[in-house]
Amino acid sequence: MAVYNFSAGPAVLPKKVMERAQAEFCNYKDSGCGVMELSHRGKLYEPIIQRAEANVRELMNISDDYAVLFVQGGASMQFAMLAMNLLNGGTANYADTGVWGAKAAKEAKLFGNVNICCSSKESKYDHIPAFDTWNLVDNAAYLHITSNNTVAGTQYRTFPKTDAPLISDMSSDIMSRVINVNDFGMIYAGAQKNLGPSGVALVIIRKDLMERVQPNVPTMLRYTTYFENGSMFNTPPTYSVYMLALVTDYFKELGGIAAIEKINEKKAAMLYDYLDSTSFYNTPVQKDSRSLMNVVFRTPSDELDAKFVAEARANGLTDLKGHRLVGGCRASIYNAMPVEGVEALIKFMKEFEAAN
Amino acid sequence: MAVYNFSAGPAVLPKKVMERAQAEFCNYKDSGCGVMELSHRGKLYEPIIQRAEANVRELMNISDDYAVLFVQGGASMQFAMLAMNLLNGGTANYADTGVWGAKAAKEAKLFGNVNICCSSKESKYDHIPAFDTWNLVDNAAYLHITSNNTVAGTQYRTFPKTDAPLISDMSSDIMSRVINVNDFGMIYAGAQKNLGPSGVALVIIRKDLMERVQPNVPTMLRYTTYFENGSMFNTPPTYSVYMLALVTDYFKELGGIAAIEKINEKKAAMLYDYLDSTSFYNTPVQKDSRSLMNVVFRTPSDELDAKFVAEARANGLTDLKGHRLVGGCRASIYNAMPVEGVEALIKFMKEFEAAN
Repeated sequence: MAVYNFSAGPAVLPKKVMERAQAEFCNYKDSGCGVMELSHRGKLYEPIIQRAEANVRELMNISDDYAVLFVQGGASMQFAMLAMNLLNGGTANYADTGVWGAKAAKEAKLFGNVNICCSSKESKYDHIPAFDTWNLVDNAAYLHITSNNTVAGTQYRTFPKTDAPLISDMSSDIMSRVINVNDFGMIYAGAQKNLGPSGVALVIIRKDLMERVQPNVPTMLRYTTYFENGSMFNTPPTYSVYMLALVTDYFKELGGIAAIEKINEKKAAMLYDYLDSTSFYNTPVQKDSRSLMNVVFRTPSDELDAKFVAEARANGLTDLKGHRLVGGCRASIYNAMPVEGVEALIKFMKEFEAAN
Repeated sequence: MAVYNFSAGPAVLPKKVMERAQAEFCNYKDSGCGVMELSHRGKLYEPIIQRAEANVRELMNISDDYAVLFVQGGASMQFAMLAMNLLNGGTANYADTGVWGAKAAKEAKLFGNVNICCSSKESKYDHIPAFDTWNLVDNAAYLHITSNNTVAGTQYRTFPKTDAPLISDMSSDIMSRVINVNDFGMIYAGAQKNLGPSGVALVIIRKDLMERVQPNVPTMLRYTTYFENGSMFNTPPTYSVYMLALVTDYFKELGGIAAIEKINEKKAAMLYDYLDSTSFYNTPVQKDSRSLMNVVFRTPSDELDAKFVAEARANGLTDLKGHRLVGGCRASIYNAMPVEGVEALIKFMKEFEAAN
C-alpha cells in the first residue's frame, strides 16, 4: 500500500531525495564515511553547506544585500533571537494571526515593546485581517508577520507595505511560492516542513540590519556570528544542512519555485474545490485567507473527525489529525507531497462521506 | 581499502549503527516513512526520544534527582545558556584548561562574574593544573570545568571537590568512562563525538538547580522549558536524537560504559606506549593529563606533520590533522573507533617513521 504522510512537520521529504541519501548514507563520495561522520571543516563537508546556501540564493533570487544563515533551535529560537538582535528596547509591530505569531510576540516582550497591530484571535484565527485595518506604530524596529499559519490554516496572499523592515516567519510556506525577498528585512523558517528535516532553521537577513546587533548578546545568539563564520562558528547541524542541500537540488531540477508554486496551487485547488462541493466536510477558514500548505477541515462531529483520521491512517493516509490546540482534521500538503497523495486523499474523503 | 576516520567531531559512528540507520532510512518500522519524516508528536517518534533518554539514564546510572534534556546549538550554546540559567549575576569559578573552557568563561561574563580559578594557558594548555593550586572563590554559583580538552589533548583523571555545584563540559569524553553523575551539578555535551551526529546536545542537570532559572530568560533558553516538555516544547532535532538512541542501544549491547572504558583504555595505551617508545614522534601533553580520547602528537617538523597527515589520508587514515589553532597531528579515538583503527594507525606511524 502506498503511504502518503500529511504530517504538518516534520513532514514528508521528496522520495528521490530520501533514496539518494539512503544510497550514500554510509559512504559519501567513496570516502568510506557517511556525511554525518564528516568533519564540518573538511574538504568533503564544506562544499555541502556552501551548496545549500547557493541553492537557497538561486531558488529565492537573493541579492548580495542579504545574508543566508543556518541556525539551530527552530523558528521558536528565532522568536527570541530576532528580538535580542533587532529590537533593542524599541517597539515592534506584531500581527497576531495564529499561535506561532503570538509566541513570537511573547518572546519579543522580553527585549522591548510589542504593539499587536492586528488580531484575528477572536474569530479563532480564521483569517488574515485586511491591511487597512492594522494599527501600526510609527518608527517601529520592524513589523513581524507569520506568512502561513500552520495551525489555523491561513496564509497571506500579499504582504503589507510599511516603512519598518518586514520580518516573516515562513516556516510553513518557505519556497512554496515565488516571493520578492527584497520586500523583507528578514525571513526565517524551520526546515522541517518544506526544506528538509528538523534541526536547522534558515535565516535570510538584510545585512544592514545586523548593524543593530549589540555585543552583550551571547555569541551563539548573534546573527553576526553566523554571518561572519559562514554558519560554522561552531559545528553546524551537518546532516540537516546536507538534507536541505539535497532537497533544494531537487527543487532546482523541478524547475525552481515558480514551477513548484504551480503544482502547489493545483494540489490546494483540488482539495478546496472538493471541500466547497460538499456539505459533509467544512473548513473554518475564510476563503481569501486559505492556506495552500495546511488545509484544515472538519467532518460533522468530533467523533467522525477521530474516525476519519483513524480510517485514513488504515488506508495509508497518515497524520491527518488537526493540531492538538484546535482539533479537527488537517492535510499538510507541502512541496514534497505529490499530486497523487492529494488525489488519494480526496478519493478517501469521498468514500468516507458516502459511508458516514 | 578500509577507512578509519580520526576526526575530532563530527566523528565516526559505530558501523553497525550506521548500517541499521541506512536499512530503515526510508521506511521505519514498515510505516512507509523515514524517521526524519515522522511527526515528533506521533506514536512512532515519541518512543524514540523516550528511549534515548532512558538509555542515557541507564548507561550513566542517573538518578531521578537529575533531568536529562536534549537541546540544540551544541556545547557552544550551553556556554551561554548555563550562565543565563544558573549564574544570575553571581560569581562562578571557571577552570581555564583549554580554548573551549575559555570560550565558556567568556559567555558567562555576560551574565555575572567569572573567577578563573586555574589556568594552564601559559604552557599551551599541556596539563590539568593540580587541584590544590586552584584559587576558588567562596559561595560560587558553580565551578565549571572541561573534562576533556579536544584541542590540547588533556583530560581530568579525577574531579575537583567543591561546595559549589560542579559543572562539566563533557563534549569529548561523555560515556567514554564511568563517572558518578552525583558528583556533578550539571553535565553537558555536544553529541557529535561520542554519542551521535551533530545537531543535539545532551544536558544532565540536577533538578534543584533549575529553581534558579528566572522568567526573563527566553523560553527556548530556559532549562525548565525542556524539562517540563520532555525536550519537546518545539520540534526537537528528531533525526539526531534517533541516532543518539541507536548509538546508546549499541553501547548497551557492548556491555555498558564500564566495558567501553576498558576498550578506550586499551586503545589509548597502545598509542601512547608507541609514542613513548620513539623519539620521532612526541606529544606535548604532560603524562598525567593525557586524554584517552584525543591523542595529539608531532613529527620532527611542521613539514613532516603535513606530509604525515596527507600520506595517512592516502592510506585510509583520515582527519589526523591537529586543530587549526595548534597545528600538528591529532588522532581522535572516541568510542566508535575500533581497536583495528588504532592498530592500523600505529602500523602506518611506524612505516612513516622508517621512511622519513
